[in-house]
Amino acid sequence: MDPIVGRMTLKEWVAVESDSVQPVLRLRRELLRMMGLAADRLRNLGARVDLVDAGFQQLPDGQSLPIPPIILAELGNDPKKPTVCFYGHLDVQPARQEDGWVTDPHTLTEVDGKLYGRGTTDNKGPVLAWINAVSTFRALDEDLPVNVKFVIEGMEEAGSLALEELVQKEKAGFFSSVDYIVISDNLWISRRTPALTCGTRGNSYFMVEVKCRDQDFHSGTFGGILNEPMADLVALLGSLVDSSGRILIPGIYDHVAPVTEEEKRTYEAIDLDLEEYRNSSQVKKFLFDTKEELLMHLWRYPSLSIHGIEGAFHEPGAKTVIPGRVIGKFSIRLVPHMNISVVEKQVKQHLDYIFSKRNSSNQMTVSMTLGLHPWVANIRDNQYLAAKRAIKTVFGTEPDMIRDGSTIPIAKIFQGTIRKSVMMLPLGAVDDGEHSQKEKINRWNYIEGSKLFAAFFLEMAKLH
Amino acid sequence: MDPIVGRMTLKEWVAVESDSVQPVLRLRRELLRMMGLAADRLRNLGARVDLVDAGFQQLPDGQSLPIPPIILAELGNDPKKPTVCFYGHLDVQPARQEDGWVTDPHTLTEVDGKLYGRGTTDNKGPVLAWINAVSTFRALDEDLPVNVKFVIEGMEEAGSLALEELVQKEKAGFFSSVDYIVISDNLWISRRTPALTCGTRGNSYFMVEVKCRDQDFHSGTFGGILNEPMADLVALLGSLVDSSGRILIPGIYDHVAPVTEEEKRTYEAIDLDLEEYRNSSQVKKFLFDTKEELLMHLWRYPSLSIHGIEGAFHEPGAKTVIPGRVIGKFSIRLVPHMNISVVEKQVKQHLDYIFSKRNSSNQMTVSMTLGLHPWVANIRDNQYLAAKRAIKTVFGTEPDMIRDGSTIPIAKIFQGTIRKSVMMLPLGAVDDGEHSQKEKINRWNYIEGSKLFAAFFLEMAKLH
Repeated sequence: MDPIVGRMTLKEWVAVESDSVQPVLRLRRELLRMMGLAADRLRNLGARVDLVDAGFQQLPDGQSLPIPPIILAELGNDPKKPTVCFYGHLDVQPARQEDGWVTDPHTLTEVDGKLYGRGTTDNKGPVLAWINAVSTFRALDEDLPVNVKFVIEGMEEAGSLALEELVQKEKAGFFSSVDYIVISDNLWISRRTPALTCGTRGNSYFMVEVKCRDQDFHSGTFGGILNEPMADLVALLGSLVDSSGRILIPGIYDHVAPVTEEEKRTYEAIDLDLEEYRNSSQVKKFLFDTKEELLMHLWRYPSLSIHGIEGAFHEPGAKTVIPGRVIGKFSIRLVPHMNISVVEKQVKQHLDYIFSKRNSSNQMTVSMTLGLHPWVANIRDNQYLAAKRAIKTVFGTEPDMIRDGSTIPIAKIFQGTIRKSVMMLPLGAVDDGEHSQKEKINRWNYIEGSKLFAAFFLEMAKLH
Repeated sequence: MDPIVGRMTLKEWVAVESDSVQPVLRLRRELLRMMGLAADRLRNLGARVDLVDAGFQQLPDGQSLPIPPIILAELGNDPKKPTVCFYGHLDVQPARQEDGWVTDPHTLTEVDGKLYGRGTTDNKGPVLAWINAVSTFRALDEDLPVNVKFVIEGMEEAGSLALEELVQKEKAGFFSSVDYIVISDNLWISRRTPALTCGTRGNSYFMVEVKCRDQDFHSGTFGGILNEPMADLVALLGSLVDSSGRILIPGIYDHVAPVTEEEKRTYEAIDLDLEEYRNSSQVKKFLFDTKEELLMHLWRYPSLSIHGIEGAFHEPGAKTVIPGRVIGKFSIRLVPHMNISVVEKQVKQHLDYIFSKRNSSNQMTVSMTLGLHPWVANIRDNQYLAAKRAIKTVFGTEPDMIRDGSTIPIAKIFQGTIRKSVMMLPLGAVDDGEHSQKEKINRWNYIEGSKLFAAFFLEMAKLH
């Protein structure tokens, strides 16, 4: 492996503003370009590459935007070797300099061994680490110990549109020869100890619109005689969660799996330095004081976050406006055995009730725009064993067996559709700040991660 | 007067994005250009024009931006004539096509006799109507019946920065010869009946910041273990006003002037068609059902509006972010005899109390960024009499004697500083939509308004 070449490509990839969240044609073009760059890189490795057309995304306003094609690629088809399929995504969260970035979000910038930039850790860096591992064997003129496949999409941050459909369609085709799926789209729980991930939370994303009229009002000319949409909306959003983090929607905890004694012991084993975690997070105080409580509330209990409001005044300065139509956005992270459609119903009933109590003359509309299942892995599987050995080889330590509070819906999709073992093998450190204004991957994690994937190939071949 | 020339200039003026609200250098340059255009126009009338330097605006982030110069101009100084000083402003509220404008906000567009565009009614149109009235006398080669002065600023929408200071400074200079001040920066209460305005509400603008850290969080990785700033903020904003429009801040109504029987009768006399008002406002239902209640809640009771949130996710689409630092913005319209510093104290105490109850580990900061006094006129004054006569001449009707729910702080500044009669003489119809995405002035109002100002000059000369 040539880390310099690897970093050069990461720099090139980070420079592409492949934001899938904002439904804007310009950004979709960047996504298309991104997928093209990745396809070229894989072809240079000698892989057979398909750019599968993924159709169009229908927007709420009736318009449609192209979905970037999904890459299906393969390298080797020796029936004596196991076939490992790597999933990754090359789309990113929105990032603008004015959001508070210190470095330009689309210029890979190294500071003290940290490679800053949008997408460095989520998920362009890990995708390239896997490619680096494969190319190492080619550079050394050695046979790949495993057959390798790639599924690389460009809509993960927008809910992996079109991916599930493709997986269904290729179940008996591209995926029929796949033995194992590896995903590397999350983080360790510490800065130094590698981890293996065996579960993720799901997510249900809600939009609640309150409308008086389409145009805004002047707060002098109309203030005092209106049911103002913002007043309704803050009341609705304020009814969702209390200041201890408990979700106030009736029935929401009914289907959450009870905590067993065995499960409790797994949290005790995790090597988490609370003080370091708090410091690296730059948070004065968490809602919970013990490691066990903290991990359970991140991994196995649902949480509700309010993300923002569309349609209200959001710029610096003082505008005296009564917004005419506003959309509040919040999401609930789901855990076993919560049911998405039950959650949707509970949320709608709750908001209907709160809104009806206000006796407002405005119109309220609630929609769930995303519903993603939680996922739990079988950690007694061969590839978990191979990954543990590879971690021991490269890092000289046992991994933390962790869950992830965030949602990687593809894990559940693969497990449910092609019914093969799914493993999540993160490369990034806990302080990588995915989705934040200081996203980075450490140079060390990027290089050791590339080595880890190569070692994993060797261990997989041995176990097969 | 040549209405064609007048409209050409209005088109030219509307094309300048003279937004004073967003503290951005590009927009300040547009403001400078706007003031230059107006100065040229006044010089062409034969006026002596001063562009008075107004210094710099200090921003909360430590930066500073130039304040556009204030125009002081005069035409005629015959000691036998009364001197009428016209106040207007040429800055506008922010306006972007994507806010929901049907026409381009900076291209004057006539549809069915309505001239759409940002600034048409607030306040570029009325400023030009006054200029049209003056130029009519010159075009007819007639002597102006009054001496005319102009104070034209470019920071009204941002709180008239630097203006009060200038008025103070020029009290014994430019303003020493002024007998009357006329302001035309508000609207009629109907579509057809002209109005005279004899009072305005004040305004106190608040920002409440809740901060966990400067960077945002990923809601998967941190959801469930944080006091999320947005949860704190919606609770704070949700504590301000109930769904009947009543402000919930303790003590806020203590100093509101009691309603007298005489005052009650003035509301009964106003010619307001509630049904038409509701329709033209495109509002399904107001908080009050009678004309009297409606007017009192617009004019003589305080109101609280929540304008929006800075720092949260505000774009279309679904971003799974926990904003790290958010600023809620709201304002309270003030009425006699509320005291600004008392209101400031009450708001801060209330928010401190609500926040302390949440026991949140975040930091809250409340600041009042604008405090503007309410104003009430003496309607037995000569210029109110002259305006009534001029309205009778041009429109053939008596004006509605109204107040304005919005804030024109300069009225109070002139009244308090130079102690001359201040009159507000609006030209625009009730449905002009200032500050909204469909701001317009009717061609009819613009032309008859220009005539009204000319007739007013003649009546003033007679009364003198």
